[in-house]
Order: sequence, then structure tokens, then C-alpha cells
Amino acid sequence: MLVLKKFGGSSVADLDRIRACADRCLRTAAEGHQVVVVVSAMQGETNRLIALANALVRPEADPAAARGHYVEAAKSCQDYDRELDQLVATGETVSAALLAMAIGDRGGRAVSLCGHQLGMQTDQRHTRARILQIDEARIRSALDEGRIVVCAGFQGVDPDGNITTLGRGGSDTSAVALAAALKADVCEILTDVDGVYTTDPRIVPQARKIDRISYDEMLELASLGAKVLQIRSVAFAKKYGVRVHVRSSLNTTQGTWIVPPESAMESVVVSGVALERGEAKVTVLGALDVPGVIATVFGALGAAGIVVDMIIQNVGHDGRTDITFTVPGTDLTRALDVLAGVTIGGEAMRVETDRNIAKISIVGLGMRTHAEIVGQAFQILAAEGINVQMVSNSEIRLSIVVQERYGELALRALHRGLGLDGDRA
Amino acid sequence: MLVLKKFGGSSVADLDRIRACADRCLRTAAEGHQVVVVVSAMQGETNRLIALANALVRPEADPAAARGHYVEAAKSCQDYDRELDQLVATGETVSAALLAMAIGDRGGRAVSLCGHQLGMQTDQRHTRARILQIDEARIRSALDEGRIVVCAGFQGVDPDGNITTLGRGGSDTSAVALAAALKADVCEILTDVDGVYTTDPRIVPQARKIDRISYDEMLELASLGAKVLQIRSVAFAKKYGVRVHVRSSLNTTQGTWIVPPESAMESVVVSGVALERGEAKVTVLGALDVPGVIATVFGALGAAGIVVDMIIQNVGHDGRTDITFTVPGTDLTRALDVLAGVTIGGEAMRVETDRNIAKISIVGLGMRTHAEIVGQAFQILAAEGINVQMVSNSEIRLSIVVQERYGELALRALHRGLGLDGDRA
Repeated sequence: MLVLKKFGGSSVADLDRIRACADRCLRTAAEGHQVVVVVSAMQGETNRLIALANALVRPEADPAAARGHYVEAAKSCQDYDRELDQLVATGETVSAALLAMAIGDRGGRAVSLCGHQLGMQTDQRHTRARILQIDEARIRSALDEGRIVVCAGFQGVDPDGNITTLGRGGSDTSAVALAAALKADVCEILTDVDGVYTTDPRIVPQARKIDRISYDEMLELASLGAKVLQIRSVAFAKKYGVRVHVRSSLNTTQGTWIVPPESAMESVVVSGVALERGEAKVTVLGALDVPGVIATVFGALGAAGIVVDMIIQNVGHDGRTDITFTVPGTDLTRALDVLAGVTIGGEAMRVETDRNIAKISIVGLGMRTHAEIVGQAFQILAAEGINVQMVSNSEIRLSIVVQERYGELALRALHRGLGLDGDRA
Repeated sequence: MLVLKKFGGSSVADLDRIRACADRCLRTAAEGHQVVVVVSAMQGETNRLIALANALVRPEADPAAARGHYVEAAKSCQDYDRELDQLVATGETVSAALLAMAIGDRGGRAVSLCGHQLGMQTDQRHTRARILQIDEARIRSALDEGRIVVCAGFQGVDPDGNITTLGRGGSDTSAVALAAALKADVCEILTDVDGVYTTDPRIVPQARKIDRISYDEMLELASLGAKVLQIRSVAFAKKYGVRVHVRSSLNTTQGTWIVPPESAMESVVVSGVALERGEAKVTVLGALDVPGVIATVFGALGAAGIVVDMIIQNVGHDGRTDITFTVPGTDLTRALDVLAGVTIGGEAMRVETDRNIAKISIVGLGMRTHAEIVGQAFQILAAEGINVQMVSNSEIRLSIVVQERYGELALRALHRGLGLDGDRA
């Protein structure tokens, strides 16, 4: 088997942990498998390097200000991002070299490869590059020499040989992309939790570890998954059919497998429920219900780079309509600024906002065939006296917005009512 | 003009100093010159990375022990050195990116290049690689775009794309090699001293800054030069005729030019005098004066990697001879171990050692034509009552070993007596 392992920043946070990673790689190799490893930077290192860059260009060390400073001259901004990539990518190069040394020290043979060496070819979008292709020849020949190949995650190289990075959490994307290119039998994401849970165990002690989950469910459960692996990497895994195994780096128990959908999965109607806070609700009241009103509002927000999540337009009456949507709470002020500059049929808009909301998402492949889940969910909330503010759904997800103070109660009630409760952790 | 500037670790030790380097580069660019910069790692960074590696493979963190551990398996050792290069080279990549950012922040345009990007092709001798050739296309095109090109010093890339390093002080070698490849008009070594002095000003306050010195004199004055630039880079500069200007990074006064010999130089008979301590004297007493005795002794030492400096064999009598030589004091114990295993004509050797010696070197192109200097030097020492223990010389250098406690007195006396004294600093 060809096993790809990815160790996050906390797993290589210090030399003892790096030695533990080495032991883990050697055990897998001793079982007769080929091993390719992807590592993040040592915990804190990426932030240290970014802080250096920020302090250099803006002594007040405010990252947003530092970038804003550069936006003044688009050309300089591009130069800044290029240098930031050259700078920050060293973090992963360091941890990869150290892990290769640790494996060698324990009697194994390893080689560390950074972006240009491991053939990770990307486009030129610095700080958020996309992978174009992977030339795996170098990795293959190192594997053929019997080596454990330690790859610096997060980084690649553009067609001109410039170092690029894949954005925050990019090491997960590196790992899945390499697993796809190498046709690895499994992509193990080794982290400091045991796997993906049916919901956040800090809120619901009865949360259970999920054994198997489909890519689509995992994508819908973004807010749960984001803690254990970068959601972008799941989309990549889905596209290339990479079998991902999220498990603890501290023990050898099975974690959560993220795999193509299997018929057995549909018998489990709901896989998990997730709670997201930090969004804000915006309601445009009594807008003229003219053609293109939606396009006007969301076109302006989109042009400002504000990502809108849920959108609801109520049925109009008297030629007027209400439009409600949610945006990240951090973007609310900016969204209001944008809307203040928009008119509909010559009228300024009346806008109400509410930061005190919580969004609960219920996700499961079985929802495709079990239409009764939707009604069941609303009954559960009604039984708790929780009022539903907004609803939206996809084929395998139902999202409900409630008042923020009812968020945790709603999560616990749905987890229990939909049959997800396990033993109290 | 094309100006190559090299900033050492102390010149990029913190962000304020990096900003000062940026200003200096921009001033030169504003004068209408093309600027290529070579930077070392931020002061302390290389040691920090090496300490990490040592602590990883040998928790007791003794560098010698860490390497020794690996010598057990030659293959692993090579792997270790390869990873050490991957690791340590990040130090220069970081400072290059930061300097490029600082230049951009001040309104200039720059680009940082690490080893594989700047075309610094070396052999595969990790941790002490030799430059094979430089493909300067990338640097040229960046210069043509009007950019200041900031190169990570110390590092290169082998034919397989592995990162290599040029050994300690390798940034000087990078700088001179790049200056040669680019046919730069000058290679400025910017450091924390004003230039090369006629001798160590801490011992002789009347030491003067040398305005111009030839490559050969600089090579012979290794012990003075080593403080301001890596002596290997001087050999490189000589080979390719690179004009080197050693000057302060803190002011703009002229420093010392290291250049091809000029006829005017010979009128200055002596350029400088240097004091070296830390060597030890070894005397092999009454060895059988058989053919090959020298080869036997120094063959054994050479095989053990011990560098022998001065060698003197006295005229033999009664078929026996005395051989005296010096080795680095740190190698003395090992040298004695080696000699204990060597027999000459079946006899073990009688060996005496003396760690309390000092070597003074008098260097000057003019010594070629001014034979009287040698006699003059001995008269000066005799006048001070200093006994001469060993003498060796080259065309432009006279080296004298005296008792260590007379070393500084001898240096001061020769500096004054040979007409080098300037105003008291």
C-alpha cells in the first residue's frame, strides 16, 4: 500500500512530537507500506513569520493595515504577496527537514522535499495559489529507493519557479492533492482530535465519532470539519476520489473515514448537526418588487467581496418585498456601507440587522430519501419553544436560523431527537 | 554600473537594520546603478537552526557528537547533511524575502531569489558545496525589469534540485561568485567594521585602515581578513578578477579595496602584520632520518584530516632528525593519538608539544623586492629580547613563531618598526 500521512502544526510543534511522527512513519513502513508524509510548519511558526513581515512594513503590526498599505499600488501588492510566500514557505521546509532527520536518526531512510522539489506546480496567485499539476517523478524515485518521502505542505512553485502557497490550511490540500497524484491507498490526516464528530462535543457531551462519512456530507458540515481539516481539501478529495482518514496523531484507534458515498450510508439518515455563530442577518424591508432587485442587492455585495450565505425573499405584496440574508458578522459594517449606496427604483433601502443569530445545519445523505426529517426537525424545535427565523436547504442539508441564545439548546435537542446521541463522553 | 552588495548577518540582525539595508540599496539605485544584493541569515538564525537539528538527533546538543553519531553510517551521514542544508538555507531565504519587502515598502521594486531561483548551481557536497556555474538569466531579466535583486547567500542547488550550502561564511563566496558571473563593477562587502586594518586594532591602537590591498596579500593576512570576509571568497575574487570593496554598513566612508596587484602597491613594502594564537607546536625528536620520514608523519596526520600549518625539519645529525610543525590547538590531542600509532624504522616517536605559542605574519607585495625586510624584522624582535622559535616564509609573507606571552609585544614592535603605525585610533 501507499500511505500518505499529513501531520499538522500541533503534531510537529516541538522536537519530541517530531520524533513521535518519525516513529509513526517508521511503523507504517515496517508494515511493508510505502510512506509519503506532508507536514505543516511547527505550531506558531507561520504566525511568527507573518508577524515579522507585518512589523517590517507596518510597525504597528496590524495585518489588515499592512495589506491595505500595499493595495495602494497594485503592483507592489503583488510583489508583497510574492515575498510573503517566499518567507512563509520556509516554515514547512524547516519541519520537513527536521522530520526527515528524525527518521534518519531512528534508522530509517527519508528525504525531505520542498515545493519546487516535489513537483507541486501551481498558478501564480500568491498566498492562495491553485494546484495545476503534480510531477510526481521525484517522489516516485525516492520511494523506489526505499525512502520515506517528507513533503513540505502548503507550498508549491509557479511556472517561473516562484514559491507559492495554497492559503491557510493548505497543507491539507497538499496532502489530498499528492494522494490523488500518487494514487495513494489512503490519505491520513493526523491531528489532535480523534476524528469528525456528530456535533461539537464541547456543546453536546453525547456527540459520537462518525466512522464513515461521504464527501458531500463533510462539505456541508464545514463548520465541524474546519476544525480537523481544511474544507477545500475535501472538495479536492471528492473530485479525485481520495479516501481520507482523519485520526489522532496521539493514538492508533480508527478515526473518521471520508469516502465516496456507499449505499450503507443512507441507512444512517442524519450524519451530524453543526452550529455556526458569528453570522449576522440583514433584512431589506419593503423594497420595490421590480425585476432585478435581487441582482442589484447581491451584485453590489459580491462586487465588494462580501460572501452572502443564506438568502430568503418573501412573497411580495402591494408591489413590495422583503429580502433577508446572512453575511459573516465581520463583514456586516461593510455590507451596510455598500447597501447605503444602492437604490431600488430610485429609493434608498430600509435595512434592519441582527447579529444575535445562530445557524444550525442538519446533514445526512439519508435526507434525500427521508423527507420526514424536515418536519421532525421543526417539531423538535417547537417542543423546545424555539422560534425559527430562516430556513434553507440542499439535497442533504437543512439549515435553520434561530436566536443566538437558543443555539446550543437547539443543537442539543436536534442531536438527541434525530437519534445521534451516543454515550456521554 | 552594476553594483553587488553583500550584507552580513549583523547587518540584517533586526527589522530596523533590514530597513537601513533597503535604504542603502535604494540610494545606490537612485544614483542610476543596477543593484544585486546578497544577504546572510539574520544574526543568530543559522545557529538556532543548527541547534534544533542537533537537539533533534542528539538531545545532549553537542554538534561534534551529533555528527559523530552519523559517521557510524556513512549513508545516513550524507542524508543528514542533505537535510541540514534544506533546513539551514531557510535562514537566508527569510532575510532575502524581508529585505525585498522592505525595499518595496520604501517605494522600490525588488525580488528575492533563493538558491534554485538564482541559478547558483553547485556540486553535491552538502554543507560545503562548490559552485559549478551560475545561470544568471533570471537575475538579468529581473534587473532589466528595473528591480533590485535580493539573493539568498550561502545556498545553491545541485544537479538534482537538492539545496546545498557553501559552508560557513558562504555568503561572501556567493557574493563574489555572483559578481564574477554578472561581471559586476564592484562587489561591496558591507560589514560592521570600516575595512581591513594593518593589524588588529584591539591589540595595536595605531593600526591603520588599508586603502588598497592585493588578493595575494589578503589571502596571506587570513587571520585579519577572516573577521571581515571569508578567505575562500578572496581566492574566488582573485581567480575571476572581482574588485571587492570591504566597507561599513553603518556609514558611507571608503573602506578597503581588494583588487589585482598594481605597481603602486609595491612601494608599500609591508601591508599588514597579523597575530594568530590557538595553534600548538609539535616536535618529533630524534627520529631516524630515513627516506620518507616526512611523508610517514604528515601522511598519517593528513589521513586523519588534521591540517598542518608550519613545518620545519632541522638538519639531521648522527642519522637522526628533529621535525617541528604546528597544528590547530583543537586538533592537538587527536594529532598525538595519530602519532602514537606511527613508527619510523620500527621505533615509536618521541614527541614534545607546546600550546603556548603565537604566530606573527608580516605580509606585503613589496617583500618580493625588498629582501632586507626579513633581517629588519628579526632585529626588531631581538631589540625587544624576543626569541624566535620557528620561521617560514612565502614570496610575500614572513611568519615567525614566538612564545605566546610575547605575541602582542612582537606584533606592536613589528607594526611600529616596519612603519605601519598611524595615528592612535
